[in-house]
Amino acid sequence: MTEPTIVLIGAGNLATQLGASLLRSGYRISQVYSRTTKNANSLAKKLKAQSITDLKKIDASAAIYIIAVKDDAIAAVAKQLKLKDAIVVHTSGSVDMNVLKGCSKNMGVFYPLQTFSKTKTVSFKNIPVCVEGNNKATEEPLLYFAKSISKKAVKINSAQRQQLHLAAVFACNFSNHMYSIAAELLKKNKMELDLLKPLIQETTEKIMEHEPAKMQTGPAVRGDKNTIDKHLLLLKETRSYQDIYKLLSNSIALTAKKNKS
Amino acid sequence: MTEPTIVLIGAGNLATQLGASLLRSGYRISQVYSRTTKNANSLAKKLKAQSITDLKKIDASAAIYIIAVKDDAIAAVAKQLKLKDAIVVHTSGSVDMNVLKGCSKNMGVFYPLQTFSKTKTVSFKNIPVCVEGNNKATEEPLLYFAKSISKKAVKINSAQRQQLHLAAVFACNFSNHMYSIAAELLKKNKMELDLLKPLIQETTEKIMEHEPAKMQTGPAVRGDKNTIDKHLLLLKETRSYQDIYKLLSNSIALTAKKNKS
Repeated sequence: MTEPTIVLIGAGNLATQLGASLLRSGYRISQVYSRTTKNANSLAKKLKAQSITDLKKIDASAAIYIIAVKDDAIAAVAKQLKLKDAIVVHTSGSVDMNVLKGCSKNMGVFYPLQTFSKTKTVSFKNIPVCVEGNNKATEEPLLYFAKSISKKAVKINSAQRQQLHLAAVFACNFSNHMYSIAAELLKKNKMELDLLKPLIQETTEKIMEHEPAKMQTGPAVRGDKNTIDKHLLLLKETRSYQDIYKLLSNSIALTAKKNKS
Repeated sequence: MTEPTIVLIGAGNLATQLGASLLRSGYRISQVYSRTTKNANSLAKKLKAQSITDLKKIDASAAIYIIAVKDDAIAAVAKQLKLKDAIVVHTSGSVDMNVLKGCSKNMGVFYPLQTFSKTKTVSFKNIPVCVEGNNKATEEPLLYFAKSISKKAVKINSAQRQQLHLAAVFACNFSNHMYSIAAELLKKNKMELDLLKPLIQETTEKIMEHEPAKMQTGPAVRGDKNTIDKHLLLLKETRSYQDIYKLLSNSIALTAKKNKS
């Protein structure tokens, strides 16, 4: 018995890492598609696959087609795929599954929750992979497929995936912006973000084990109006950061109040 | 030659960890003060020191007095100390050094940038310690003292310390609130924060090596108005989070624009 064959559409960061991981897990990648010959060839060679730059040349006999291209390119790729009953998935957190309608009877989503770079090899073992299918005949094998490369594969529906993506914006994009503001404030005053790195690490380590709301520290949760006022004064020349400080301090105080009652 | 003797005022999380670290580095702790007998005794025993609950009984012959009590209790403690020319420091990021005026000719700040718990033993080796003194005769020995327990001891002035404390609110307190909002959104939709933990870890790991502003990802920095609008719609029932989403997305876009130009 042979493992199901996979066609990889895309040759970016995710496609590179996912392809390598699939190969390590014993899957056969039959083709790698990219718009540019160079990218297609480069990844195809690594994955021992055929390189294609024209979707008309796609191998119609594979079991799973993974579209791992940029969000706004998914629809255009999908329009060119006609695959009867093979499983076709995209890998996006925010794009609707139905964009794949017309590709195949069996469509789904294979959404790994991690950021990827081409060069840093990652193991999928500990990366949560969220799968969804338009029917049971898709969803079940898709879940097993995900479980074969990740210990953290779960089924979630489209509504949940949207909320998950939104939550990721808060937890990752917005917290990164907080680091960015901190770095800017320090730079202006001839200090380095290095001073705060151990504290940042400790903050994230704590929430690996505990509910973040219960780990909240700082002037806002203490109701330390004195310090809050001092800080707002320090921010008087950067009004936009002052606004952020106010809004977030109020929100922290509100959350603390809610959790108490 | 003997190491300088230290009196520790306070028996909370920081005093506990700092005392243990000083002892390991070969310092002698002569006394531990706490308002409550139980806390004073418990820490004094660990540090092979005398336990006192009355500041009138303080050993006047020590070289360094470290006030490691809550911010709003520092002034009250300081009023009771009359120590000629020993070095007296507090350990707060936000309290003015001058609150120690009257304690001694030589006063300063010894501010370790980390959160501490009583039970989790921490090494001070990698914790940044920011020191300040009211004169060179205080600042120089204080810096060497800090360097003797931490590889990351630096001199910073009061204005910098205030900015540092403010930056820490953004980098730690506010980012923790972002995790808290993410956890709440997920819980409402029957998912766990666990799904986002690898991504959160990767986000912090990235800024250990790179400037946060350059590592920014997500819809706001991409100018992906479509996704932003979808997210705002998902937040329509929690107006305060919608406000946060808008303000932070605008701020991210503004930062990206500034960095480009």
